[in-house]
Amino acid sequence: MEKKVELTKNQLARLPQYLAFFKKCVDTGLKYINASIISTALSLSEEQVRKDIQVISSVSGVPNRGREIKKLIADIERVLGFNNTNNAVIVGCGHLGLALLKYDGFNDYGIEIVGGFDNDPNVIGKEFGNKKIYDIHRMLGKIKELNALIGIVTVPSEVAQKITDNLISCGVEAIWNFSGIKLKVPSNIIVSDVNMAISLSELSHKLYMQKIKENNNGK
Amino acid sequence: MEKKVELTKNQLARLPQYLAFFKKCVDTGLKYINASIISTALSLSEEQVRKDIQVISSVSGVPNRGREIKKLIADIERVLGFNNTNNAVIVGCGHLGLALLKYDGFNDYGIEIVGGFDNDPNVIGKEFGNKKIYDIHRMLGKIKELNALIGIVTVPSEVAQKITDNLISCGVEAIWNFSGIKLKVPSNIIVSDVNMAISLSELSHKLYMQKIKENNNGK
Repeated sequence: MEKKVELTKNQLARLPQYLAFFKKCVDTGLKYINASIISTALSLSEEQVRKDIQVISSVSGVPNRGREIKKLIADIERVLGFNNTNNAVIVGCGHLGLALLKYDGFNDYGIEIVGGFDNDPNVIGKEFGNKKIYDIHRMLGKIKELNALIGIVTVPSEVAQKITDNLISCGVEAIWNFSGIKLKVPSNIIVSDVNMAISLSELSHKLYMQKIKENNNGK
Repeated sequence: MEKKVELTKNQLARLPQYLAFFKKCVDTGLKYINASIISTALSLSEEQVRKDIQVISSVSGVPNRGREIKKLIADIERVLGFNNTNNAVIVGCGHLGLALLKYDGFNDYGIEIVGGFDNDPNVIGKEFGNKKIYDIHRMLGKIKELNALIGIVTVPSEVAQKITDNLISCGVEAIWNFSGIKLKVPSNIIVSDVNMAISLSELSHKLYMQKIKENNNGK
């Protein structure tokens, strides 16, 4: 039975940092490492590193030596899904879709965007690196061929539900939803809604709070 | 002295929903409303509504009647900064920058993107609604003219620090950072980093956990 590892958002965010560091350590010839050494190198608290390693590592440490770095690397890659199917497709290759298609930061997290779909003949057939944009009417065959379980919905809100239904019938099990509408999906489908406005409004609210503080201080 | 209102992320996210509802209520002729009535209309818990109103409202309710809707609307608009300067400019009008420039969901949160900057002659001068893209070398004059205190950084990582320094010298006080690098800013400048990969990796991780669960259940 595979170990079930439930990570917090912050832990997930730190894993690529550990991974890059451990790979550099292996290159230098290092074989073992402990939480204290990691914490000073990465400017994290020792307690935090200890907890992170505990949750991802499948093996115990060796006294006075710590953990085998190669095993830590394998653990992180497993948890990040490097050995699994983390292929994603984008439906809707407007500005946002293309920005995501061209963004190269997903690979650090073991996710690969393997292609896009659109209905615009001017966009269909374009390639970015090894990522191609396909005709939206070819979703059914292509998504299975590309082995994608994640669908990124960047189409206009009025067609988002229909596209989502199509994605699910093509075998997609997780939806990253930029459409702004609440999608209706079966209970076994995972949906994560992205609302860019909320993130910007948080920043704006912080600025507003700072202004009030300044005004109240008679500045 | 203006009342200092510190909102949680979830509270901020609900405010546009209240605002739209209250405006509809006013249109029908309603003058007063209470938390219980709001909670049933918006499918929120009464306790949550009560807390939200407490934190935003500057006036008390009237027994058996509740709060004056027009005052609630004014309170939300004030908190969301509709009466303040919440103008933002985008620097870097590639796919991501243009996607944000064209996105119309920010207005619900009292934020207005008033223009963009780029160094590409093919992009400079383009207009989307009333939002124009200006030459990046004209930032100093234009940002003051546009009265923008928020800068959205969607330039490549290698120039992000330089652009941020420029934005700050143009009077920008809050930075929404999509560049992927850690920006160095003076302590009075607010920075919010956006890492799209973390959000997608959360979704991918949930999918991974679901797969393990299915496998362990012998599916």
